[in-house]
Amino acid sequence: MIYLGSQSPRRRELLAGLDLDFQCVKIECAETYPSHLQGADIPLYLAQLKANAFHHNLKHNDVLITADTIVWCDGKMYGKPTDENHARLMLQTLSGREHEVITGVCLTTKAEQRSFAVTTKVRFAKLSEAEINYYVERYQPLDKAGAYGIQEWIGYVGVEGIEGSYFNVMGLPVQRLYTELKKLGYA
Amino acid sequence: MIYLGSQSPRRRELLAGLDLDFQCVKIECAETYPSHLQGADIPLYLAQLKANAFHHNLKHNDVLITADTIVWCDGKMYGKPTDENHARLMLQTLSGREHEVITGVCLTTKAEQRSFAVTTKVRFAKLSEAEINYYVERYQPLDKAGAYGIQEWIGYVGVEGIEGSYFNVMGLPVQRLYTELKKLGYA
Repeated sequence: MIYLGSQSPRRRELLAGLDLDFQCVKIECAETYPSHLQGADIPLYLAQLKANAFHHNLKHNDVLITADTIVWCDGKMYGKPTDENHARLMLQTLSGREHEVITGVCLTTKAEQRSFAVTTKVRFAKLSEAEINYYVERYQPLDKAGAYGIQEWIGYVGVEGIEGSYFNVMGLPVQRLYTELKKLGYA
Repeated sequence: MIYLGSQSPRRRELLAGLDLDFQCVKIECAETYPSHLQGADIPLYLAQLKANAFHHNLKHNDVLITADTIVWCDGKMYGKPTDENHARLMLQTLSGREHEVITGVCLTTKAEQRSFAVTTKVRFAKLSEAEINYYVERYQPLDKAGAYGIQEWIGYVGVEGIEGSYFNVMGLPVQRLYTELKKLGYA
């Protein structure tokens, strides 16, 4: 059985797009990481942390998928905003420039663990204050790293282009995940 | 009023993502183009052709959006496949390499016409015969240029990465369209 250790409806939809059977499980753990970690090491650490909190439940022939997504811009990490004001500040920072979206993925079986990180570059057009306010008020992106969903209005009007996997920006690098699941015999 | 001259449900959803009011209209014209045209000139020509077939219906303050999307690979144009076999052949051609998806867009008012083309590079992993057969039989991509929808299973398991606009690959470069509509006062 494939388990997805995530409550995110977006990750669930993305994994469902691979046409594989799987089950979602809730993993509770404090998502904190050592402050010296940089870039991809942050979501990799958090994906492993989630995996290790569930590992004891795995049986032979089970694989657990855990993942974490961050926005990385100018050497700083942007996770989920704490409130609307914080969301507006994040979007002002990302406006008119390029940043990276990094997803760390961890595949765990009873016997072993494999991790990988996938990076996508995202280039935002200059966003006006009115556009940022409209998006934050109407779409409430408080559950999203970097305060935006690329599949929402702000992605339509604001994202000039990307380099890499689009689905990775949504939260799961499904093409890479598929090749890794194939190697393990799950796809 | 904004009119979308397209019956494609994907284009309708993409334009709806800009949160603008619009109306879909059906435009009937033979979609043929001069054989000497290459690359972006093909979808630009076809988008203008569709526009010109509807132009006489436009009133003051109306704008009509027409578009056409092609796949361009190694100096050859790939439109919609004629049958399942043709679809399989197209996907074999695109497998394991990079191609371009080009959308030509035409904005027409009673007084003027503006056109632009947007190109996105798409890199496919090596697709197995079993993967191609599964996709073509299950998803029936006969209505799609290049015989694939990037938002479908084949895009999940097969697209390693893109360079440019994701929504352009789906059929409408919404971010560029939004900036052009703003210039004309429609967004």
